[in-house]
Amino acid sequence: MESSKPLVETVADQLIEYILKNEMQPGDKLPNEFALAEKLNVGRSTLREAVKMLAFRNIVEVRQGAGTFVSAKKLGVPEDPLGLMFVRDQKKLLYDLLEIRITIEPRLAALAAQHGSQEAIAELRELCDQVEQKILAGENHLSEDVAFHSKIAEMSDNIVAGHLVPIIQQAIYLFIDVTNRRLASETIETHRRLTEAISKGDPIGASDAMLLHLIYNRNDFEKLRFS
Amino acid sequence: MESSKPLVETVADQLIEYILKNEMQPGDKLPNEFALAEKLNVGRSTLREAVKMLAFRNIVEVRQGAGTFVSAKKLGVPEDPLGLMFVRDQKKLLYDLLEIRITIEPRLAALAAQHGSQEAIAELRELCDQVEQKILAGENHLSEDVAFHSKIAEMSDNIVAGHLVPIIQQAIYLFIDVTNRRLASETIETHRRLTEAISKGDPIGASDAMLLHLIYNRNDFEKLRFS
Repeated sequence: MESSKPLVETVADQLIEYILKNEMQPGDKLPNEFALAEKLNVGRSTLREAVKMLAFRNIVEVRQGAGTFVSAKKLGVPEDPLGLMFVRDQKKLLYDLLEIRITIEPRLAALAAQHGSQEAIAELRELCDQVEQKILAGENHLSEDVAFHSKIAEMSDNIVAGHLVPIIQQAIYLFIDVTNRRLASETIETHRRLTEAISKGDPIGASDAMLLHLIYNRNDFEKLRFS
Repeated sequence: MESSKPLVETVADQLIEYILKNEMQPGDKLPNEFALAEKLNVGRSTLREAVKMLAFRNIVEVRQGAGTFVSAKKLGVPEDPLGLMFVRDQKKLLYDLLEIRITIEPRLAALAAQHGSQEAIAELRELCDQVEQKILAGENHLSEDVAFHSKIAEMSDNIVAGHLVPIIQQAIYLFIDVTNRRLASETIETHRRLTEAISKGDPIGASDAMLLHLIYNRNDFEKLRFS
């Protein structure tokens, strides 16, 4: 087979093939460089380049002294996946990110209420508690908030949503300081209402609670923009 | 400033800084390697590594013999940005991608009807014609179809949607052969209805036409799945 691709890219594709064919899981260790180079019949410097390329794409991670592993965190999701770094109007970007959340997340909340397992519901309750505790302690609750919304996306049982929601959430938190006391009390109330609706298997209630939560957020951002 | 980042990544960040600070546009040429290495005070081999890293992320492109340019196509959007390559159940993935389209695109069509300029509407009509011509000629109309839906996303005036819709569309076409005659005639009719509603500035009509179009698609995929 001939190809116009640079050799390094071809080798990178072969490595992906290898990971898929062997059904390797996140965290699994790849064979050492010597064995891999032999297996793929390429030089070690080419292999090293290809591994670097996959590391940039978050497909593998190289741990110094320990070897190369299938990426355990956000497998295959590169940094800034939507290429938003180059958007110049950051206020508009923030507003548009929220518009996308308003479009997607109510439906995901409804799906979560339909599909969520008892185990997932227990985890969601735990995350809801964690956000609340952080807010009440006056601490930054960003990562707990991302985890809460990502959990709902995961419970929707839509694979794409499970990847997309954390990306959009994180993009928002790149641009804004949400440790805002007024919004925080509304977050406690609407998160709680959302968690209850999902727990009861009430799709419409979950969708409405999510919409209310996000509209609160947008109101707040609008004040930021126009004050 | 000290940093735990590898030098190559630090240099890559400086290059991004440079592109942003100089407000370089897609297609603009970066200074030559020698000048850049001097400017950033790094060795040329480190610089070359950093450039490679940005090329993987689709931030720059290296044209052999011509130099390094700010990426003209999908600036900053890497290959497989949502990391879907590692999803094993591809039929479910396809269904879930369509579920996301059904969730997002009707609202984007409504926004396009509200915000679309006369110029954009003319371009949309042209794309609608192109899809129709390809279908009637029995040719593959994938790239025209992606362009049509991406145009509507762009007309919604939501920056994130403008990035996201092409990504989701392309992910679908990685997995399915849509040159399906029955679906094709429905595509002609619903695309036309959608284009008319957007042209008239009718948000509800546009949203309904998009929903109809995507539900047709889902019906078709369901037959694929369960036949």
